[in-house]
Amino acid sequence: MSELSQDQYWMQRAIRLAKRGQYSTKPNPNVGCVIVQQQQLLGEGYHPRAGQPHAEVFALAQAGDAARGATAYVTLEPCAHYGRTPPCAEALVKAGVARVVIASLDPNPLVAGQGAEILRAAGIVVSIGVCEQQAKQLNPGFLKAMATQKPYVRLKMASSLDGRTAMASGESKWITGAQARLDVQHWRALSAAIITGVDTILADDCQLNVRQLADDDVTNVVQPQRIILDRRGRLNLTAQILQQPDTVMVMGPYRDDLAALGVQQLPILALPDLLSYLLEHHQIYDVLVEAGATLATAFLQHALVDELISYIAPTFLGQSARAMFAADFTTMAQQYRFKLLDVQQLGDDLRLRLIPSQESV
Amino acid sequence: MSELSQDQYWMQRAIRLAKRGQYSTKPNPNVGCVIVQQQQLLGEGYHPRAGQPHAEVFALAQAGDAARGATAYVTLEPCAHYGRTPPCAEALVKAGVARVVIASLDPNPLVAGQGAEILRAAGIVVSIGVCEQQAKQLNPGFLKAMATQKPYVRLKMASSLDGRTAMASGESKWITGAQARLDVQHWRALSAAIITGVDTILADDCQLNVRQLADDDVTNVVQPQRIILDRRGRLNLTAQILQQPDTVMVMGPYRDDLAALGVQQLPILALPDLLSYLLEHHQIYDVLVEAGATLATAFLQHALVDELISYIAPTFLGQSARAMFAADFTTMAQQYRFKLLDVQQLGDDLRLRLIPSQESV
Repeated sequence: MSELSQDQYWMQRAIRLAKRGQYSTKPNPNVGCVIVQQQQLLGEGYHPRAGQPHAEVFALAQAGDAARGATAYVTLEPCAHYGRTPPCAEALVKAGVARVVIASLDPNPLVAGQGAEILRAAGIVVSIGVCEQQAKQLNPGFLKAMATQKPYVRLKMASSLDGRTAMASGESKWITGAQARLDVQHWRALSAAIITGVDTILADDCQLNVRQLADDDVTNVVQPQRIILDRRGRLNLTAQILQQPDTVMVMGPYRDDLAALGVQQLPILALPDLLSYLLEHHQIYDVLVEAGATLATAFLQHALVDELISYIAPTFLGQSARAMFAADFTTMAQQYRFKLLDVQQLGDDLRLRLIPSQESV
Repeated sequence: MSELSQDQYWMQRAIRLAKRGQYSTKPNPNVGCVIVQQQQLLGEGYHPRAGQPHAEVFALAQAGDAARGATAYVTLEPCAHYGRTPPCAEALVKAGVARVVIASLDPNPLVAGQGAEILRAAGIVVSIGVCEQQAKQLNPGFLKAMATQKPYVRLKMASSLDGRTAMASGESKWITGAQARLDVQHWRALSAAIITGVDTILADDCQLNVRQLADDDVTNVVQPQRIILDRRGRLNLTAQILQQPDTVMVMGPYRDDLAALGVQQLPILALPDLLSYLLEHHQIYDVLVEAGATLATAFLQHALVDELISYIAPTFLGQSARAMFAADFTTMAQQYRFKLLDVQQLGDDLRLRLIPSQESV
């Protein structure tokens, strides 16, 4: 193997390790680290949870003295600052590694490169950019938040082939099947917050929490905040979602009854300002919108959606059923175009992942 | 290789050969034949076009005397009757083959097995059922027509993510991209007839013929009949589709002007009766419906659709745009459920192939 393909091999191992923290590091990024000497694995680790050590610490501890002269692979630039833990860049220097391979730099433009600089100043060879795109996909919210001060927003939709979400009466259980519903839990677990409208809570009495995962034990998940947009204060205290009030936030007129339950209340803001507020005050970097057509359409109309997760059930519900997208367009030029990232069959349903198209139509 | 996997190997070659006639044998089935001795290919052929020799004739001619003692692989039971050519079963006997492997029997219950019987009576070993499902997929229309006296109906739809086909004004070009539109040509070329409504002709002035194929020269195609449902006689003589009047049929009140052009006219019938009529009088076994929402919905409501080919463009057109499916359902129990056969990405669009679901919801 060439050096580059060796580097890619080990970096991909570090990326897989990083993913083990995907449901639990929020608001911290997922990071993985592998320490290698002469193509022998000496140590590896990942960041498991905010407040716990970084990936490099675990990997160095496992490698011990053997780390001297070794190569370290890290999916994100080692930190250069004292936080809850001492800077990882200094730990790598202290351990005597000879080379550090970094997939992507720290996204914060004010600090990017400082970790790499500490390493270089100590005479360590630093290589940057191996498997960079893959590594960046580990932390879309963290990267976007650091770069733009706005969270990464995923919009989940579920519809029939003819673009309907429910009958006119509201009847809707279940359009998609069990596999699609299980898949939704994955995206919830990745998210720091789920945003919904009070109408969804009133209609479905849903909890919007993570109850089951295909690829991990649900007890490992740091549960997302459930944020209910309730501008007119209509949320009923008997709603099931209030059974875990510590992970509920309500945006609406201030209510003593919600305060007594311990529910966080948010000021009434326009959607773009709400997202900035959630980032600034609650370190919410990854948002999943699970809402009815009106709120979903509002997120699209404000161009706040970074990624659309669209489940399609192979059925027709008819033209009297409720439309998934509530805007009124009169010409094709007004359409909202997306680019298809991938499509997957989940049982009898499809899941599409899409991003807004940059092209004009 | 075991004998079974050898048989599968050669039968798959015969199936690939049969497919070369997919656009040109109508109303005859696609058939391929391979002649093999001691795992050496001696001859191969396929049925290229109605009126031309059958697959076995080409393969036997290529093998010549070497066919004596060989094994013949045929995707469909060799014919036992005198038609435009002498029966292939007798040709195989005359050539002295020792064994005939047949993928599927003749679907006509009145004649099934007669070809095999002629072979067996001549002392030839006959094996039936190798790659049967694959072979049957070559000829869904022929098989359904022989078994039930009804043609195989594919319904093509193209819509946005939110289930719309056009703006309220009718503006619709182009929702799907070039690759999806090229793919439609494949399904047209497979079909003996395209059925559309006069409103589609009046709105789009489309020709519904085969103009380009991804996998074959368009001059090899036997063009489908274009059948226009025009119960009120509104078709205009300037419609582009009438430039090739010999492949146009119009169902509507009798018109002298259409007769003068050489257009075939069909009696006004309900959809199920029309399909039976087309089969009985015109040997139309494979139908593609390309129509607006009203006619497409009518085919679905009459349960006449065997296969739905659904193109989805990743865009939202809004709730004022035209719905792809025009039925009015009030409860989920009324929904039309499908089973997803496969999904394919075509450029930025998706193509779903679906069949009606047998399960109740």
